Amino acid sequence: MNKYYTVVLDTEGSDKGPAMVAEGAALSLEKYPELKLVLVGNESALRAEMEKRGADADRLSYINATEVITNYDNPSVALFTKRDSSLVKALEAVSINDEYVGMVNAGSTGALLAGSLRYLATPDMKRPALAAVLPAESGGFTALVDTGATIDCTPAQLVHFAHLGKEFIKTLYGVENPRIGILSNGKEEGKGNKLVKEAYQLLKAERELNFVGNIEGTNALSGDCDVLVCDGFAGNQILKCTEGIARRIIKDIVVFSKKTGDESIMRVVGHLMKLYDFNSLGGGVVLGVRKPVVKAHGAANEQSIVSTVGIVLNLAKNKKIEYK
Amino acid sequence: MNKYYTVVLDTEGSDKGPAMVAEGAALSLEKYPELKLVLVGNESALRAEMEKRGADADRLSYINATEVITNYDNPSVALFTKRDSSLVKALEAVSINDEYVGMVNAGSTGALLAGSLRYLATPDMKRPALAAVLPAESGGFTALVDTGATIDCTPAQLVHFAHLGKEFIKTLYGVENPRIGILSNGKEEGKGNKLVKEAYQLLKAERELNFVGNIEGTNALSGDCDVLVCDGFAGNQILKCTEGIARRIIKDIVVFSKKTGDESIMRVVGHLMKLYDFNSLGGGVVLGVRKPVVKAHGAANEQSIVSTVGIVLNLAKNKKIEYK
Repeated sequence: MNKYYTVVLDTEGSDKGPAMVAEGAALSLEKYPELKLVLVGNESALRAEMEKRGADADRLSYINATEVITNYDNPSVALFTKRDSSLVKALEAVSINDEYVGMVNAGSTGALLAGSLRYLATPDMKRPALAAVLPAESGGFTALVDTGATIDCTPAQLVHFAHLGKEFIKTLYGVENPRIGILSNGKEEGKGNKLVKEAYQLLKAERELNFVGNIEGTNALSGDCDVLVCDGFAGNQILKCTEGIARRIIKDIVVFSKKTGDESIMRVVGHLMKLYDFNSLGGGVVLGVRKPVVKAHGAANEQSIVSTVGIVLNLAKNKKIEYK
Repeated sequence: MNKYYTVVLDTEGSDKGPAMVAEGAALSLEKYPELKLVLVGNESALRAEMEKRGADADRLSYINATEVITNYDNPSVALFTKRDSSLVKALEAVSINDEYVGMVNAGSTGALLAGSLRYLATPDMKRPALAAVLPAESGGFTALVDTGATIDCTPAQLVHFAHLGKEFIKTLYGVENPRIGILSNGKEEGKGNKLVKEAYQLLKAERELNFVGNIEGTNALSGDCDVLVCDGFAGNQILKCTEGIARRIIKDIVVFSKKTGDESIMRVVGHLMKLYDFNSLGGGVVLGVRKPVVKAHGAANEQSIVSTVGIVLNLAKNKKIEYK
């Protein structure tokens, strides 16, 4: 008898629409033989999409939803007014059913965060964080926590994020004693804004944390730490600035290649696009909730769906979450 | 009779030492015929360096200093205990002598800022800002204000920085009605941390400012605004993250070129290093003080000295500061 892990996939809300998500679902089923999927959205349309792709019907089920929460909706209001939205139905399903190990969504980040807190809050009711897993220069990955769930933070919240990040990196990659850094404007102790200075002292005092001190923006993704703690505003800057500069440099190279007529240079573009393609690396992971919730970028493609589903799957496997 | 602009150059405090600064001084005199320089540091050693380079002695003068303020000194303490340091002597000279139009330094940023406030404060005694002038994707430049002078800001200070940046970009590049943006975590009004949300409303209400709203990290250097306002902590992240990612991508390309044996790819490295060489673009500019004070990076080379001297020169020329 096979052992399966069932992941709930909200098919609505992405820029490219449900057909792209269906394609990602089909590819995920091919890639992960232990995966079962619950597709939430327009059931009949989804059934047709999946049949067209010859997907394994035994590992698929559907939840019909007649509404969609978009980026234009007020997140916390929409959770109450759009009760038949794919997001609310997906969250409800994950919340209630023990056999569902987690969920993936590519829609409104705000609604997903508010919904995660509403449907999947831990008993302590602390703020969740949105982590981004980015490739470190030294190889491996750095989890940036928080990247936008909590824009104005307290020092104690940053300490909470450090613990969430530690648990997450340990579970996902098996890193034994993850190095925790805090984003600051200088390496030395004493550098930082008021928030960072206070959080530094608290982090230093936490015995269960392998705290390595301040990390500057230059080295945010150097691999000097496994978890980089920051408030959601600063984390959002690091994440978006990195994407912006990478895209800009790739554009510079294309222009240079055209101008010089040297097409061989274009080979490096393909290489860089793979390295800095945050889509295929998967989007944000909601930490501090009962089950893994992973957010693919709004601009996600089918490969992003495959990798975000993979993150939920790996977290569930490594946490030895019950399967049926 | 020639018209000259005299710039004071602190030769101490850079990673590469006074000989590099002397080389930058010699190159500056060659490049700018209207320039006179006052070199502050070890006078006899500097005289020897400049003679060795055959620099125009008529456009050079010296101020001897026997002490150096380093990055290890406490900035505000060092200003009082190291009275014979090159930085204090340079600041005193610029402060007192009308014929000196501004100064350049490549040492401790903290000491330069504290010193600028002590010796060159404007009557209103508002906090100065450290601006970085970065190449915008659309061509032209964006001034990032502040990049580290004021780590914890009030909303009113961000408005002050907007005015400083406006004046600066207007004076340096002749931009008529500079577009002012504020760094945030989303484009829409209402996005931002507490500081940004409050500053947004104040900036919107300022009639003399051409306020264009929130700018995300992705587009910090896209050219969507001429002046990007932020607190010193966030600005430091954008500046350092940009440098870090640019360096990392250049390294990726070098590795790729070696691995594939395709040396023609290395041509694009030279191109990118020129585009993203923040050294040759000059360092930070202290805004909100009586005369232009420009900071070259600690890791500055002789070209950075030439371009930072050029910034002081251009600001002085365009402001029609008195010359002798």
